[in-house]
Amino acid sequence: MAVAPELLADRLRRASEEAAEQGVDLLVVTPGTDLRYLLDARGSSHERLTALVLGAKGHAAPPALVVPKLEAPGWADVPLTELGVEIVTWTDGEDPYLLVSDLGGGPRRMAVADSMPAAHVFGLRDALPDARQSLAGKIIAELRMRKDSAELAELRAAGAAIDRVHARMGEFLRPGRTEAQAGADIAEAIVAEGHTAAAFVIVGSGPNGASPHHDVSDRVIQSGDMVVIDIGGPLASGYNSDSTRTYAVGAEPDPRVRDAYEVLRVAQEAACAAVRPGVSAEEIDATARRIIADAGFGPRFIHRTGHGIGLDVHEDPYIVGGNPRLLEPGMAFSVEPGIYLEGDWGARIEDIVVVTEEGGERLNNRPRDLVVL
Amino acid sequence: MAVAPELLADRLRRASEEAAEQGVDLLVVTPGTDLRYLLDARGSSHERLTALVLGAKGHAAPPALVVPKLEAPGWADVPLTELGVEIVTWTDGEDPYLLVSDLGGGPRRMAVADSMPAAHVFGLRDALPDARQSLAGKIIAELRMRKDSAELAELRAAGAAIDRVHARMGEFLRPGRTEAQAGADIAEAIVAEGHTAAAFVIVGSGPNGASPHHDVSDRVIQSGDMVVIDIGGPLASGYNSDSTRTYAVGAEPDPRVRDAYEVLRVAQEAACAAVRPGVSAEEIDATARRIIADAGFGPRFIHRTGHGIGLDVHEDPYIVGGNPRLLEPGMAFSVEPGIYLEGDWGARIEDIVVVTEEGGERLNNRPRDLVVL
Repeated sequence: MAVAPELLADRLRRASEEAAEQGVDLLVVTPGTDLRYLLDARGSSHERLTALVLGAKGHAAPPALVVPKLEAPGWADVPLTELGVEIVTWTDGEDPYLLVSDLGGGPRRMAVADSMPAAHVFGLRDALPDARQSLAGKIIAELRMRKDSAELAELRAAGAAIDRVHARMGEFLRPGRTEAQAGADIAEAIVAEGHTAAAFVIVGSGPNGASPHHDVSDRVIQSGDMVVIDIGGPLASGYNSDSTRTYAVGAEPDPRVRDAYEVLRVAQEAACAAVRPGVSAEEIDATARRIIADAGFGPRFIHRTGHGIGLDVHEDPYIVGGNPRLLEPGMAFSVEPGIYLEGDWGARIEDIVVVTEEGGERLNNRPRDLVVL
Repeated sequence: MAVAPELLADRLRRASEEAAEQGVDLLVVTPGTDLRYLLDARGSSHERLTALVLGAKGHAAPPALVVPKLEAPGWADVPLTELGVEIVTWTDGEDPYLLVSDLGGGPRRMAVADSMPAAHVFGLRDALPDARQSLAGKIIAELRMRKDSAELAELRAAGAAIDRVHARMGEFLRPGRTEAQAGADIAEAIVAEGHTAAAFVIVGSGPNGASPHHDVSDRVIQSGDMVVIDIGGPLASGYNSDSTRTYAVGAEPDPRVRDAYEVLRVAQEAACAAVRPGVSAEEIDATARRIIADAGFGPRFIHRTGHGIGLDVHEDPYIVGGNPRLLEPGMAFSVEPGIYLEGDWGARIEDIVVVTEEGGERLNNRPRDLVVL
């Protein structure tokens, strides 16, 4: 479903204001999630430059979209005229960076999309040698990290879709199957349940569960294994799901594993319960970390507690020590502590949590008590 | 199938030599096709830095792979030790750019991957303020544009796979179906015939065929339509297919369309026949363009004649006016002239051609005479 033009106009206006606030004259945004947020359009990230050129509030440049002439027809569905964005096409042989320079109103400080390929970064550097280049991500992140109600509806739908996949886990995870076999079925289910793709499928069985970024392998799942399942993908709108559950497969795990899992469950619960406006991101991290450390597993929790989520699977705000950012209504992020015993087993529990006026709303709601499949 | 370690070692050595040749001290290659070429590994392109750091021949830096500690297990299959590449891990909170600076041996000129995101480009700029940054792509392109026999075998397999999809086009293209319906079936066939994904599916029927980068729409295909089908995707090895045929659907097109198509067919044939070592890329472009212009369609052929192909769908050498690059055995590129009558119809014929010792070898071999489905 298309984002309403009024909403896009408002995003462009606020991006322009935030740029001025952060001392930047010009934003240059190539295809990626920032462009998708600002124009509800994907664009192509071929070697040919496509870029939204947006002046900061008070700066001379009128909004323009620089686009290869060949690709202009692909922008017919985007309400550029309604948004006051001029479309400026270029053909092979022209220098698109000089076009940006002509449109840019002599910027002294130009912020470019964090994902802009170096080839374009240097093209702009050479066309605008006097403009200091910085990152646009932290400007647009100020908008993106506060989700509006349409965005929250998409994240809720994504959360429900990935919950439906976890609900079917008994079909996929069985002793005697390899991680790769289970992973292929899970990937299919992710799409069948409403995602456009399976962006990531981690099936970490037994010792592989102790490697947080393991994906899948040919290891055969054994009865009694703990298996970390961390899965997600985008909906058609571009908004992502991301949820982890750890299952015991085939048999009860032994009591020391159960006990450690229970520590993790309590830590994840406490961190989710701590979410409310005005609490800092690092405090949410510390809440989970304290409980895990107090139980003696401090050195076994080897990553941050979470990350924001939206059009990117990883975006602001990061739930990590050293991030003093205060939570505000509309922020959405994962809470996903883990305990990893290298060479032996690992576990992680992950929900997406949205900050509400009074507290937090979890978008993933499958059981967090240890499920034996 | 994994690339043989000797081949990778040779690629690293030649990259180092070519860097020195081009006056660069240090290569910094983040995940993307250049990294895949050099290490036969994908890596992850999250916000966390992963990069191959490779000194130019004669420069002090020993080869190293900088990688987030969390992701190190994912590199276990890459023969880094055998290749003499040290793995250097970092954890959240450390500055990975300072790590590159420490490893880099004081470079004055550093080339970074063309696809490196601006966030990493600026991180390196700040950690190595005295090093002038340029693009690594044109260094590694000197290697990548000359395919070895293993690479050519992959491109041949990709060509045969996409030919099998074109051979089934009668199943998909029928009057009364929308472009999107046909496109969905074609995408499925692309995967079924051996690709890991359908990277692009253009179904340009009737007037939509006149927009070279159209993808699909809800337009219903009419009897008598010309339909441009430009499709491709990667094999598991990462090597891509890309082939276009234009079909008449349901009925013979009218004679003026047939005549224009015949001009296009002759132009594409002539350009393919002109391929041999020592001929320039621009001469191949001129060969097709001359024939089309002589028939009065010059202004209707609105793009370059072709692009190199390999791990990227678009790479060097570009078959375009102004490119004096002389063809050499092992180069692989598309030859794809088109004629576009805006608002009316369009046609394009595209084969991948490999330069051999004596001439050219076409990797796509479906009929080029107008097929009526």
